Amino acid sequence: MAVVLPFETNEPSLDALLRLVKPDMDRVNATILARTGSDVAMIPEVANHLISGGGKRLRPMLTLACAALSDYRGEGHVKLAAAVEFMHTATLLHDDVVDESDMRRGKLAARKLWGNEASVLVGDFLLGQAFKMMVEVGSLTCLDILSTAACVIAEGEVMQLSAAKNTETSEDDYLAVIRGKTAELFAAACEVGAVLGQRPKVEQGACRSYGMNLGIAFQLVDDALDYGGSQAKLGKNVGDDFREGKITLPVVLAFRRGDAEERAFWKRCLEGGASDDAALSHAVGLLTKHRALSDTIERARHYGAIAKDALALFPAGGAKDALSEAVDFCISRAH
Amino acid sequence: MAVVLPFETNEPSLDALLRLVKPDMDRVNATILARTGSDVAMIPEVANHLISGGGKRLRPMLTLACAALSDYRGEGHVKLAAAVEFMHTATLLHDDVVDESDMRRGKLAARKLWGNEASVLVGDFLLGQAFKMMVEVGSLTCLDILSTAACVIAEGEVMQLSAAKNTETSEDDYLAVIRGKTAELFAAACEVGAVLGQRPKVEQGACRSYGMNLGIAFQLVDDALDYGGSQAKLGKNVGDDFREGKITLPVVLAFRRGDAEERAFWKRCLEGGASDDAALSHAVGLLTKHRALSDTIERARHYGAIAKDALALFPAGGAKDALSEAVDFCISRAH
Repeated sequence: MAVVLPFETNEPSLDALLRLVKPDMDRVNATILARTGSDVAMIPEVANHLISGGGKRLRPMLTLACAALSDYRGEGHVKLAAAVEFMHTATLLHDDVVDESDMRRGKLAARKLWGNEASVLVGDFLLGQAFKMMVEVGSLTCLDILSTAACVIAEGEVMQLSAAKNTETSEDDYLAVIRGKTAELFAAACEVGAVLGQRPKVEQGACRSYGMNLGIAFQLVDDALDYGGSQAKLGKNVGDDFREGKITLPVVLAFRRGDAEERAFWKRCLEGGASDDAALSHAVGLLTKHRALSDTIERARHYGAIAKDALALFPAGGAKDALSEAVDFCISRAH
Repeated sequence: MAVVLPFETNEPSLDALLRLVKPDMDRVNATILARTGSDVAMIPEVANHLISGGGKRLRPMLTLACAALSDYRGEGHVKLAAAVEFMHTATLLHDDVVDESDMRRGKLAARKLWGNEASVLVGDFLLGQAFKMMVEVGSLTCLDILSTAACVIAEGEVMQLSAAKNTETSEDDYLAVIRGKTAELFAAACEVGAVLGQRPKVEQGACRSYGMNLGIAFQLVDDALDYGGSQAKLGKNVGDDFREGKITLPVVLAFRRGDAEERAFWKRCLEGGASDDAALSHAVGLLTKHRALSDTIERARHYGAIAKDALALFPAGGAKDALSEAVDFCISRAH
């Protein structure tokens, strides 16, 4: 009888990261719950709809893991991790208004239940709470990193808005968008962990670089999944990006590799908004024909490799291994 | 021939305040212009549409004047004043999305020109820039005051949302709303001026109280003007609050003082949204009958008096006089 080697079947997972940060993460979750409290009942209602709606809480875990990697012994990482998650949640709430999304994390989007107004305002409240927590931690360097991130995220989102429905968007343009709207918060989340640990500049930079490149990889995989993942896996509808006329890397590649007729199709669908289910299925056909989805994953793998190499200067250990496997996990989501 | 005494004709104005802060305000305006800059062209476009659209820039002037009142000699007040104005501008942009406003500061609202998305995201960008400037100033106490204000403002706005279209709203409920959505930023703007000047706690508290009560008075006058001012004076349409079903103090008073038939009218208009020009003109009739507008101004006068008394413990001088006259000016707008 043949022995099945675990070699190929051992899927990368977040388990090591989850184990590493478990005690701290329990405190982060308690902090998140406590800090969405308000006498104004609608605030915890809306915030908890989204926050309890799951999501992996990857970003706060990164702050905790980078603090561990940096041998930080204080208490500030818990509040900073919660602040990072609040910044992310605020972005999601505001994004739903911008995208007019119906679903988020597998639930009805908050704006569908409470209206655009509530999504905008509760997002603002969470952003305010995030800054309050950072102030309580008291590190001006961390405040600088995270307030800069808030600006860069908004810039990235506005850039995406300007690029929306523009099929001429280049791969470089697109990278600038996702560096801002997604990767910057990953980078800041990681960097503040190292700053708290008072690591040398080069190590703070390494954590930042790890986060930035992981963030890019994460977003690219997300973009590919939007055309290929199941609804359950995504927590949103397959084809949302297509229907919203969002230009993502798979489309950038397929558009450039396509012939005149194909480009006309992309323009019609993405710029004109003529995108029903038949169009979506034709789009997936073109993406497959031009290997646009698999090459998007290839690109993600490239950034993932940079992220892992950024960690090289840290000594071997549990934190380093967990962060490294998190990269593989993010990319393996594509399969 | 009788001599006309200037006594009664000397209308209170902002002139003394404007003169007091002029050199600093020029630097605040330059900072505002510089800090809306971004490679993403849509950001300065949207931001400057609103910022160059006028507005008195009362809030940053308050920060500068309270810094002057506190004999502050440093540089931080310029960036904090700009940060306060950015927080205010961000709120206006987000409010327009919430209220679905068509006009703002006498111009088309940004959301009508660039869409809700741009208003949400450029607001987020300005909020980020505001925090960056606060971090650059480096006072954790000021950061605490202003980040707390950001939360309280959002809470006030959400409270207003929950109270919207509810004619049962009490005067106390309503005061809680405007303390949050308007007066808190006035209070924070004033308090940080005194904090920078490293004044004793009691004087910091006095500046905060001045701002809080001025802010309440300011909002009450605004609410009255919405039913009585000219469009040019308001920079928005007369009757906007009525058409949006916003419950303000004039309505709270008239509803409670009215008979069953009148209450049914208010409910129909504000809760049901049946509010055309004829309804607006009937509403103004009821407000006049019940002295609801003049009593709203009376209430404003009360808070204005508290604001002026809060300044009593400061020595006489240009800054104190200018701040005191600013209160009279805000209330005289109602005439």
